[in-house]
Amino acid sequence: MKILVTNDDGIFAEGIYKLAKKLSEKYEVFVVAPDRQRSATGHAITMHNPLRAKQIKFFDTDIHAWSVDGTPSDCIKLALEALLKGKPDFVISGINDGPNLGTDVLYSGTVSAAVEGAIHGIQSIAVSMAYTKDIDFNVGADFANKMVDELRGNKLPPHTLLNINIPKGSKEELSGAKITTLGIRRYKNAFEKRHDPRGNEYYWLSGEVINEAQGEDSDISCIENKYVSVTPIHYDLTKFDLVKIMKQWNIGL
Amino acid sequence: MKILVTNDDGIFAEGIYKLAKKLSEKYEVFVVAPDRQRSATGHAITMHNPLRAKQIKFFDTDIHAWSVDGTPSDCIKLALEALLKGKPDFVISGINDGPNLGTDVLYSGTVSAAVEGAIHGIQSIAVSMAYTKDIDFNVGADFANKMVDELRGNKLPPHTLLNINIPKGSKEELSGAKITTLGIRRYKNAFEKRHDPRGNEYYWLSGEVINEAQGEDSDISCIENKYVSVTPIHYDLTKFDLVKIMKQWNIGL
Repeated sequence: MKILVTNDDGIFAEGIYKLAKKLSEKYEVFVVAPDRQRSATGHAITMHNPLRAKQIKFFDTDIHAWSVDGTPSDCIKLALEALLKGKPDFVISGINDGPNLGTDVLYSGTVSAAVEGAIHGIQSIAVSMAYTKDIDFNVGADFANKMVDELRGNKLPPHTLLNINIPKGSKEELSGAKITTLGIRRYKNAFEKRHDPRGNEYYWLSGEVINEAQGEDSDISCIENKYVSVTPIHYDLTKFDLVKIMKQWNIGL
Repeated sequence: MKILVTNDDGIFAEGIYKLAKKLSEKYEVFVVAPDRQRSATGHAITMHNPLRAKQIKFFDTDIHAWSVDGTPSDCIKLALEALLKGKPDFVISGINDGPNLGTDVLYSGTVSAAVEGAIHGIQSIAVSMAYTKDIDFNVGADFANKMVDELRGNKLPPHTLLNINIPKGSKEELSGAKITTLGIRRYKNAFEKRHDPRGNEYYWLSGEVINEAQGEDSDISCIENKYVSVTPIHYDLTKFDLVKIMKQWNIGL
């Protein structure tokens, strides 16, 4: 079985190394990932510049790996349509250094790469460690490996994928795993205004998360309660119930 | 009534000019848009660099306008959280030079900016001309203006927005307007491989659209039949029916 691995923290990040290495124990792994940090690129693709892909030595492994000067979505597109021979059985994106929860998945390069895999009809998973200091990526790598086994039996329906977040703690400290929905993430004071040495204004995106009541089923509550969160997601943005309602409206030219 | 306008073709594109000028006949308009072409940026946001916003003279108008060195989503975030006094009543993104149909909305900076407006609880619309040569942006500007009037009576529910595409033709040549769902857009031969003068490979994203059978209700069929397409969309990617099914799976650590 072949697995294509990418991420949005760059090909030399610890998370992708731990993930690819773990998966390579049982499967044939191909790594195609950005040459540098590409967080918060959303589903960006490179149309106005050419892309370059370079085969590289991937840490201490023999895993086939290409470094690409594009976004995570570019990496999946390029891998599937130009670099790899034959279609992989899985696309796995991660392991991200930090959470991809709730509304924030819209901004996530990690999740978008997995969406790109699903668009190409491949079972796809995004994996993120939902904290930022002293990360133990092995917990995420083991869980991702386990989900691949699970999905060999229980296939995902077309046009869907999984978004996985792992809370802080060793395997023994975690409460288990739950199937969740995307919660709501909002921020306050999102921009910090500063002045450069020449007196010109500039803005840094910052902002604290606003703690809001979340549904019990949400990925955010799940992580707070020390469960691994597995959210099935899709990418058809049509709001079907509103289609029905709006057909009653009288819209002309 | 206040309207915030942005786009992804850059603040000096014809589409945003025609849109903002038309809306300014009846409403107070603010333009906050990228300083250059930002197509296919998806929902990217700028986290690792500071953003600069510069007030500029917007063509031959007195419209308040800021040029921002970021993505369309950055522009909306920055406008709402730093530049504008008070919340606008509408966010309108466009008018895009080219279609934003079907699966392609995932890559669209135009649509993502409108999603950002909806996330902030503002009624939001993305508008695109669904063709690329000899574009008559006035048809799009008139229709957007009409939709704003419509939505003053019939408000959109929370967390939803409209994606509008306009086919080629004068108002008289068009068949009308339809409420649609997102169709499927796939491409073949997506990358073209070339060699630079030093013999190194590089890839251009290109690719032809594969013509596939589309549902009668889809935005793609609608444009083919010369109707303006109005698709209600949302941004909760949770696949709810699969949540129910997966809860029966036996997923442990």
